[in-house]
Amino acid sequence: MPTLPPVLVDIKFNPEGVARALETAFSDRGSINLANPADRGRDLSEAEYALLWKPDADLFARAPKLKVIFSGGAGVDHIIGMNGLPEIPIVRFVDRSLTTRMSEWVVMQCLMHLRGQYAHDSHQRQRQWAKLIAPEAAEVTVGVMGLGILGLDAVAKLKVMGFNVIGWSRTRKEIDGVETFDAGALDSFLGKTDILVGLLPLTPETTGFYDSGLFKKLRRNGALGRPVFINAGRGKSQVEADIVSSIRDGTLGGASLDVFEAEPLGSDNPLWELENVFITPHDAAVSEENALFRHVETQIARFERGEPLQFLVDRAVGY
Amino acid sequence: MPTLPPVLVDIKFNPEGVARALETAFSDRGSINLANPADRGRDLSEAEYALLWKPDADLFARAPKLKVIFSGGAGVDHIIGMNGLPEIPIVRFVDRSLTTRMSEWVVMQCLMHLRGQYAHDSHQRQRQWAKLIAPEAAEVTVGVMGLGILGLDAVAKLKVMGFNVIGWSRTRKEIDGVETFDAGALDSFLGKTDILVGLLPLTPETTGFYDSGLFKKLRRNGALGRPVFINAGRGKSQVEADIVSSIRDGTLGGASLDVFEAEPLGSDNPLWELENVFITPHDAAVSEENALFRHVETQIARFERGEPLQFLVDRAVGY
Ligand SMILES: NC(=O)c1ccc[n+]([C@@H]2O[C@H](COP(=O)([O-])OP(=O)(O)OC[C@H]3O[C@@H](n4cnc5c(N)ncnc54)[C@H](OP(=O)(O)O)[C@@H]3O)[C@@H](O)[C@H]2O)c1
Ligand SMILES: NC(=O)c1ccc[n+]([C@@H]2O[C@H](COP(=O)([O-])OP(=O)(O)OC[C@H]3O[C@@H](n4cnc5c(N)ncnc54)[C@H](OP(=O)(O)O)[C@@H]3O)[C@@H](O)[C@H]2O)c1
Repeated sequence: MPTLPPVLVDIKFNPEGVARALETAFSDRGSINLANPADRGRDLSEAEYALLWKPDADLFARAPKLKVIFSGGAGVDHIIGMNGLPEIPIVRFVDRSLTTRMSEWVVMQCLMHLRGQYAHDSHQRQRQWAKLIAPEAAEVTVGVMGLGILGLDAVAKLKVMGFNVIGWSRTRKEIDGVETFDAGALDSFLGKTDILVGLLPLTPETTGFYDSGLFKKLRRNGALGRPVFINAGRGKSQVEADIVSSIRDGTLGGASLDVFEAEPLGSDNPLWELENVFITPHDAAVSEENALFRHVETQIARFERGEPLQFLVDRAVGY
Repeated sequence: MPTLPPVLVDIKFNPEGVARALETAFSDRGSINLANPADRGRDLSEAEYALLWKPDADLFARAPKLKVIFSGGAGVDHIIGMNGLPEIPIVRFVDRSLTTRMSEWVVMQCLMHLRGQYAHDSHQRQRQWAKLIAPEAAEVTVGVMGLGILGLDAVAKLKVMGFNVIGWSRTRKEIDGVETFDAGALDSFLGKTDILVGLLPLTPETTGFYDSGLFKKLRRNGALGRPVFINAGRGKSQVEADIVSSIRDGTLGGASLDVFEAEPLGSDNPLWELENVFITPHDAAVSEENALFRHVETQIARFERGEPLQFLVDRAVGY
């Protein structure tokens, strides 16, 4: 039996976790881990499968025989624009645990805005007993942008928590008990939204998409007073200068951001200290390495049996 | 048609809201609002129904013809021990909106502990980019104490969010997908619990119940490292000195408290500044006045038609 060429791994996150999980992953063919100094100079010319997160620029030139590219995360914007990207299938990472974690983050952020957590927290720091009468979830409309794997799970859980939920996507979806809108109906969607939740992939259409023009179209004088912007898709979809000015001038009443135009967010960035803004460091839904490697193994096995790959990226739309 | 004696109202919360809602409530018989200075001295001797929250001590002496007592909240501990309490039915307040709000609070607090909101928040204040890898909800067991109206709703929503959920009540309950325990199985319940959620009424049995002895029985080295205590039942069920020492010595890894031994919580109380402790000022689930008065109208109508009252308190057990 001929030896199989090892899986090429070039992932720029959690190097210890990746190294540990690679010890037992891909037992039939092994792996080349470019984060490992001993592997860095290895010959990649026979590699057939590559698992990538923000890969090196020369990677595709060094590995001309790739058959399938796997993304180390749910998004593929870190690969799609690369020079020399070959015309082969790209598979993204879809995983129950990643989806569940994202919904934990989304529901928590929506509840924190609903229940005035920012105000409660500052009262606590001032040792001040000050009751707040919050609206109940049913009085607040959460508008979810992006009704893919992540958006649909968040929608279902926000509904269970009592929120009124509406949704927006490129192609219109049918979801029980949820009013949905397609790309063309953007303004009607925004006009009904009190809390905007962004779960869009980064593509040319969604770059710089969340700007003050968009924030101004959100519903004013809803039950929360002013609308709230929440983003866990990609940072380059938001115009951060506009978030800052919209919070300061009252166009937005608050925000929750897990993603940023440039990461890590610089310590001099004004976002850190805005009123009623919650910042998390792109950890809303991390890819767990063992689950990631199992997913790649499964897809390679399907591919080699001649079955269709799952979670394929549509290069024409960019996600 | 004889005029009906007005409903006696003695509620010690939100006076403006109560006064406003009373303008349209009880249109067939009117009301006497003891929070209103003009009503304070009125003759109460003919009153048949009283709606009470922490009523005046002489109230029952002044109103000897009462037929039913209504509590202004879900709990009745503020009435049960009163001198001169007549042997008549006591009805507590049960309301979909109040239940929903309590579950918002409970789910939000559990998620904030799961997702390290306290640490994220202090990193944000220090403008520090520091990713946290949290366990996912399924790795954490939430133990809910009290499986009544509030506990059951919280259990269902915590399950949807992915938590492993177990429950404890005086008499054992059957809940699909949830391991349940009765009063006698307290230690096994505690030994499996990472996040303890208290939704118990205040009775002699539950007074001073949450103490360091109990905290020590919670599961150690679960996915959160150390156990967390959350209480939205009644403050007199907790021993606050023990909460303080248990947080300081690491018996507890965190807490969320909406209720306190004495309210409002004094500004010199050490609870305000404990590490990983979230304080809210008894506003987890407020009684909305319009809903409260509608509920009392409904129960009076049932009573006068000879139908059984709902949400009756069992005086023998005290809730
Ligand atoms: N912060 C984090 O930790 C984290 C973790 C994982 C993922 N993410 C981000 O979340 C994104 C979404 O993930 P997913 O798995 O839910 O993706 P997905 O299943 O591909 O869904 C994407 C959704 O966005 C919609 N969409 C895309 N472009 C659009 C446009 N121009 N106008 C309107 N709608 C558009 C799609 O519409 P159609 O349904 O019509 O195709 C689809 O509903 C990822 O791309 C990634 O960037 C962030
Ligand atoms: N913080 C707030 O804003 C707020 C708002 C509303 C209510 N509350 C508090 O929440 C409490 C619970 O409300 P609820 O409507 O859910 O009450 P409920 O329907 O009467 O349920 C009470 C639950 O506690 C259990 N229980 C009572 N005594 C017990 C004991 N000694 N040992 C074990 N279990 C015991 C009961 O067991 P069984 O099922 O066997 O009877 C029942 O499951 C209220 O009494 C009130 O104090 C707080």
